[in-house]
Amino acid sequence: MPGNSFGKMFRITTFGESHGPVVGVVVDGVPAGLQLSKEDIEFELSFRKPGKSFVSERKEIDEPEILSGIYKGRTTGAPVAIVVRNTDVDSSSYEEIRYKPRPGHADLAYIKKYGYENWDYRGGGRSSARETVSRVAASALAKKLLMLTNTWIAGHLISLGPIELNCNVSFEEILCSKYSPLRCSKKDFEEKFKELVKDTLAEGNSYGGIVEVVAVNPPAGLGEPVFDKIKADLAKAIMSIPAVVGFEYGLGFKATKMKGSEVNDEIIKKGNSIGFKYNTSGGILGGITTGEPIVVRCAFKPTSSIRIPSKTVNLRTNEDTLISVKGRHDPAVAVRGVSVVEAMMSLVLVDHAIRAGIVPSVKLNNKDSEKIEKNWRRYISSCKP
Amino acid sequence: MPGNSFGKMFRITTFGESHGPVVGVVVDGVPAGLQLSKEDIEFELSFRKPGKSFVSERKEIDEPEILSGIYKGRTTGAPVAIVVRNTDVDSSSYEEIRYKPRPGHADLAYIKKYGYENWDYRGGGRSSARETVSRVAASALAKKLLMLTNTWIAGHLISLGPIELNCNVSFEEILCSKYSPLRCSKKDFEEKFKELVKDTLAEGNSYGGIVEVVAVNPPAGLGEPVFDKIKADLAKAIMSIPAVVGFEYGLGFKATKMKGSEVNDEIIKKGNSIGFKYNTSGGILGGITTGEPIVVRCAFKPTSSIRIPSKTVNLRTNEDTLISVKGRHDPAVAVRGVSVVEAMMSLVLVDHAIRAGIVPSVKLNNKDSEKIEKNWRRYISSCKP
Amino acid sequence: MPGNSFGKMFRITTFGESHGPVVGVVVDGVPAGLQLSKEDIEFELSFRKPGKSFVSERKEIDEPEILSGIYKGRTTGAPVAIVVRNTDVDSSSYEEIRYKPRPGHADLAYIKKYGYENWDYRGGGRSSARETVSRVAASALAKKLLMLTNTWIAGHLISLGPIELNCNVSFEEILCSKYSPLRCSKKDFEEKFKELVKDTLAEGNSYGGIVEVVAVNPPAGLGEPVFDKIKADLAKAIMSIPAVVGFEYGLGFKATKMKGSEVNDEIIKKGNSIGFKYNTSGGILGGITTGEPIVVRCAFKPTSSIRIPSKTVNLRTNEDTLISVKGRHDPAVAVRGVSVVEAMMSLVLVDHAIRAGIVPSVKLNNKDSEKIEKNWRRYISSCKP
Amino acid sequence: MPGNSFGKMFRITTFGESHGPVVGVVVDGVPAGLQLSKEDIEFELSFRKPGKSFVSERKEIDEPEILSGIYKGRTTGAPVAIVVRNTDVDSSSYEEIRYKPRPGHADLAYIKKYGYENWDYRGGGRSSARETVSRVAASALAKKLLMLTNTWIAGHLISLGPIELNCNVSFEEILCSKYSPLRCSKKDFEEKFKELVKDTLAEGNSYGGIVEVVAVNPPAGLGEPVFDKIKADLAKAIMSIPAVVGFEYGLGFKATKMKGSEVNDEIIKKGNSIGFKYNTSGGILGGITTGEPIVVRCAFKPTSSIRIPSKTVNLRTNEDTLISVKGRHDPAVAVRGVSVVEAMMSLVLVDHAIRAGIVPSVKLNNKDSEKIEKNWRRYISSCKP
Repeated sequence: MPGNSFGKMFRITTFGESHGPVVGVVVDGVPAGLQLSKEDIEFELSFRKPGKSFVSERKEIDEPEILSGIYKGRTTGAPVAIVVRNTDVDSSSYEEIRYKPRPGHADLAYIKKYGYENWDYRGGGRSSARETVSRVAASALAKKLLMLTNTWIAGHLISLGPIELNCNVSFEEILCSKYSPLRCSKKDFEEKFKELVKDTLAEGNSYGGIVEVVAVNPPAGLGEPVFDKIKADLAKAIMSIPAVVGFEYGLGFKATKMKGSEVNDEIIKKGNSIGFKYNTSGGILGGITTGEPIVVRCAFKPTSSIRIPSKTVNLRTNEDTLISVKGRHDPAVAVRGVSVVEAMMSLVLVDHAIRAGIVPSVKLNNKDSEKIEKNWRRYISSCKP
Repeated sequence: MPGNSFGKMFRITTFGESHGPVVGVVVDGVPAGLQLSKEDIEFELSFRKPGKSFVSERKEIDEPEILSGIYKGRTTGAPVAIVVRNTDVDSSSYEEIRYKPRPGHADLAYIKKYGYENWDYRGGGRSSARETVSRVAASALAKKLLMLTNTWIAGHLISLGPIELNCNVSFEEILCSKYSPLRCSKKDFEEKFKELVKDTLAEGNSYGGIVEVVAVNPPAGLGEPVFDKIKADLAKAIMSIPAVVGFEYGLGFKATKMKGSEVNDEIIKKGNSIGFKYNTSGGILGGITTGEPIVVRCAFKPTSSIRIPSKTVNLRTNEDTLISVKGRHDPAVAVRGVSVVEAMMSLVLVDHAIRAGIVPSVKLNNKDSEKIEKNWRRYISSCKP
Repeated sequence: MPGNSFGKMFRITTFGESHGPVVGVVVDGVPAGLQLSKEDIEFELSFRKPGKSFVSERKEIDEPEILSGIYKGRTTGAPVAIVVRNTDVDSSSYEEIRYKPRPGHADLAYIKKYGYENWDYRGGGRSSARETVSRVAASALAKKLLMLTNTWIAGHLISLGPIELNCNVSFEEILCSKYSPLRCSKKDFEEKFKELVKDTLAEGNSYGGIVEVVAVNPPAGLGEPVFDKIKADLAKAIMSIPAVVGFEYGLGFKATKMKGSEVNDEIIKKGNSIGFKYNTSGGILGGITTGEPIVVRCAFKPTSSIRIPSKTVNLRTNEDTLISVKGRHDPAVAVRGVSVVEAMMSLVLVDHAIRAGIVPSVKLNNKDSEKIEKNWRRYISSCKP
Repeated sequence: MPGNSFGKMFRITTFGESHGPVVGVVVDGVPAGLQLSKEDIEFELSFRKPGKSFVSERKEIDEPEILSGIYKGRTTGAPVAIVVRNTDVDSSSYEEIRYKPRPGHADLAYIKKYGYENWDYRGGGRSSARETVSRVAASALAKKLLMLTNTWIAGHLISLGPIELNCNVSFEEILCSKYSPLRCSKKDFEEKFKELVKDTLAEGNSYGGIVEVVAVNPPAGLGEPVFDKIKADLAKAIMSIPAVVGFEYGLGFKATKMKGSEVNDEIIKKGNSIGFKYNTSGGILGGITTGEPIVVRCAFKPTSSIRIPSKTVNLRTNEDTLISVKGRHDPAVAVRGVSVVEAMMSLVLVDHAIRAGIVPSVKLNNKDSEKIEKNWRRYISSCKP
């Protein structure tokens, strides 16, 4: 069964390969009346771009083209299709891997599934991280729609290899990581991360890392028992990102070492409402959002493409061999991963907000539309240094 | 949008509340020709049952009744509906929580979502772990179908609170944990776990734990790029279980501390095929199964229901108050969670095996049917002490 | 892929065979706060019951049992499971067909699909019209929810074999057909229909017929371009009913003989709104409801089970043979079909009303709940002679 | 909920408006290994093109661009995205309708649903028949995959206004209608149709018509009880086409006038298998294909866009007014509709063939691939005069 669509009421379908003409996305389920410009999409795409010296050197201009669904600057209720041309595509460096599946990559799995003769080995084809451009492009619409409830999403890198961010960070600091080249919310750690990246790059190696993403001011009541719990859908969304190998929310794995009396949060009065004191559950109980900030973390494994030779088997000769990947790659894929995790969270939240009737499924009225635009402008300004 | 169904080609829909007349499941997408008896379902349900002295004392007999889809002992292609009556239901102990949402429980989230006036507070209603009976019942069919490829699934508890299983364990040992009251695969750790459970119980407290589940001999090629990756669907499935707060596969979060050169597995010749030396990726690359054993772990938070009083707010009086849950509950919900995680993995794998055409979607021929039955008998015997 | 579920936001999953223990349905996506009693369901089921002397003599008591989703008389947001026991089941008369697939029945198609050895030949198994009990039971919830917008649905038989109702009929008259044994909205035609049924029954034969169903006061804006148009979803819903072989709305097939200038309706002012003069389009344009009454018709073929012998092949001996079906069957299945067509229309409309945010997806407030109850009482009274 | 996708295992998502830059489609669920060229798609699109003098004069070149999913001329298992640029788009003639919703069109329904301010009135926007280009483009893949079982699909116009084709027609004759400008399978009727079209055009009017489509050599066993019956999915697919107002299969509405003894087909021996003598059920029983040819018909209403003025209301002034549509339009939209009905049938059949495991979901082997190509070449030759 097809697997290239995600979401139920707000549904994206992505297409395109790393070395094909485009990567693209069709966003279906966008209510009419949302103002949307090419710049909105470019804004989100800009944070997925590689930093200057640290990461993949592919010169991705990533200029989105909106093919449908917009009339006079507003959505019409029709599906919004967006494509981004793949420029600077040089497949020649991939000729070597044609017979040498790369350890840690999807190569062998794709070959076993689709047959060697149908394998698009250029740049990882559909399994390339390039595919996530589509997700981030779509997230511009999702994030804008979430502005209706003033829900903001931002993430940062909280560990890189052995180095862990070990202090509390405010949402404002996380937001500011958007203009840190390593998506770091603390200046001192940014320096440490930089150092590590430089060494790793020099070694021709890579490091994994942990990304944390927070949504503030989310609506309460998102998530549908018992399988479409918000924690389950967030997990699926984020685990579908290339290189992600683990997911947790709230206390996550730490909770397994703790007692019920420590983990159970205190229920307290908060103004006219009732809420939680410490938000140990990361904004989610019973798989439903409580209205407290949603806090998730995920584990990126180290980039598989490294210069250091790895052992593999030549499929033509059936002989043991070595492969050293020479293309351009990130020593720390988690860095660019931050914006992709943000994107996936935004897609899940907006989907559930529509399912719950909190964001309208068919059309925004003018007041909604203006409120979104105002909040969006504030958000954009907050993301600038 | 409804959230009580799971799976695409092999689809379960569950219903029923903790203190309603039944919990049940409709399994749709079962190919015709599968032999299925009440005993097959009872067998799987038996491992979800509480151990004698350690865990929830509810006397769940859990006798399944098959309502449809079977004729002369075999499936017909029609949906298989199964119900289990809720016996030994005493809602009186829940009257106290009627106005006191329990910290760590779904109570407040349900109230915010569905309205206080519609809240079924008895025993957690639909959010109760009782709901997982339906999943485990359905897994009997899934596990049997996976016998077609001789894929076996088994799990164990690898940590309980501060105690971690720190040695290698064979699949046979994991399988044998089925007759350990604490789902422990090593005798010496079973003793340590028992001690901890006893103390925790005495304290009126609870502990979290980590469950590991392994599928041996899985088909290669399961998982659909890019959103229905097997890792994404496993994450969703397992994160939808009550009390699960984290998920990982292969090296998981550990990989974030490691280098690419350490994590990249060696590709090697294996008989007539090509495989991986260390299976660092837990049987999954590019979101597709490689044919190596699938290894996942998940984090259970400590049971929220504890005797130790927690702070909450009385919804009627709007006053701060304390709540101490006196019903019967597990000091270590992860123990019974093992069979539920197994169940969810089996549902994902069979769904994807049908999607990939590896298990037939419409009917099994007689040879298939016999092969399944033979492997199933072997599996049942292996699970006995 | 499983085919026993219908609907997206309001989703039913049916199960059970004609001669199994029950037929049943799980209704998922019911907002919390809807008052629901066993009597509400019985009310709808009563119109599917066979009339005394004309139709199938099976004594179906059809007493629904609600297994989940209701607490203190109101829905909780959890799935509502309903079963109806199959009583008066005598499979002995089906032994003859064991090797003789019945012409016009699903027999041979089921055998080709699922294999002869897996075929449940008793009473048509899953292909029996008995399955529609589940649909009608679920429609009680759908019809109640549509009372929020005061949308009422009613149908009648507009032709039986050669006799066609050839006069205009008001919605009130259609509603009154509920207490006509032949679902006829006009007394004089009822007599003609009765005569025909009597003759047909005597002959051991059967007749087809056309059912018309109308929804008055539907919300405008239902239907999602371009595949989930309301006309497409109504067609799917109604064509999924056993014995239905054709569907049309508005002018339907008649429009093919007409000119654009005749078919194009006049757009006119209607109070403060704008509407259509003749409703030639049956309430649907561009696949979206216009707010005018929705008018659909469908063709039931004559009941396949007849006493007159038909030619078939004995599957065991491979010899030509004759079969004469002696079980109890309707000479005019379209009569009981009326309530099933009504049911399917209600399921489609409520699903789309939730998709469009017109009926809430999560919970009804008390005012909504009372409005529904009030309109429902009015509707029930209107259906009584 | 989004409505721009169709199919479950073979799933298309369409996008694009009549006067936007493109119309396009993403086809997900295409097995790897299918040879696919731009010419294959152009071949199918060519039959949707307007005939010279009779129909819409828009000069649609309809050159498809394949954006993804193909490598070295074969599918890879990745989604296939196809766009067709909209050329010759002149929106100026639509300025008049900006305030004058056109009778018989989707205009008023779209306005009521999405809001007047979000309405893309140019050329019908998303409701335009132009959208069906996407469906026909996708059908090239579907029809090729069906060549694996040598299933061929072809349709013809069987009535135009008052003129009905009243003789038996062979499948070969239906196939040959592909090069008839009016999709007529009989020369003498083609002349009559031409005459009628000429007169209708002169009058500035339009006529409805009936299209019949036949699939020969379909696999038996397609269709999933009880809601995804093949008859239900065909109905949904075909009723989703603009201007279609009715659907039937086999005897269809005629069966309502007939007796069971006339409609029940004879089951007879056919070589080594068992089949039906007259195929009165149009290849479908119990909602499942029997292996006999599938025969469906659908009703197209007359084109709504006519030169003859119709009554409407000016939305700005709220005054009664007249509208006369001056753009280029078909006097007989059913003619071009034939290829769209064919397309929708092919999409349903291939979807169900994959669901049933008859067409592989993941990859075609080389033998399959060659068989398809051989049958496809034969099919293309048969469609040439």
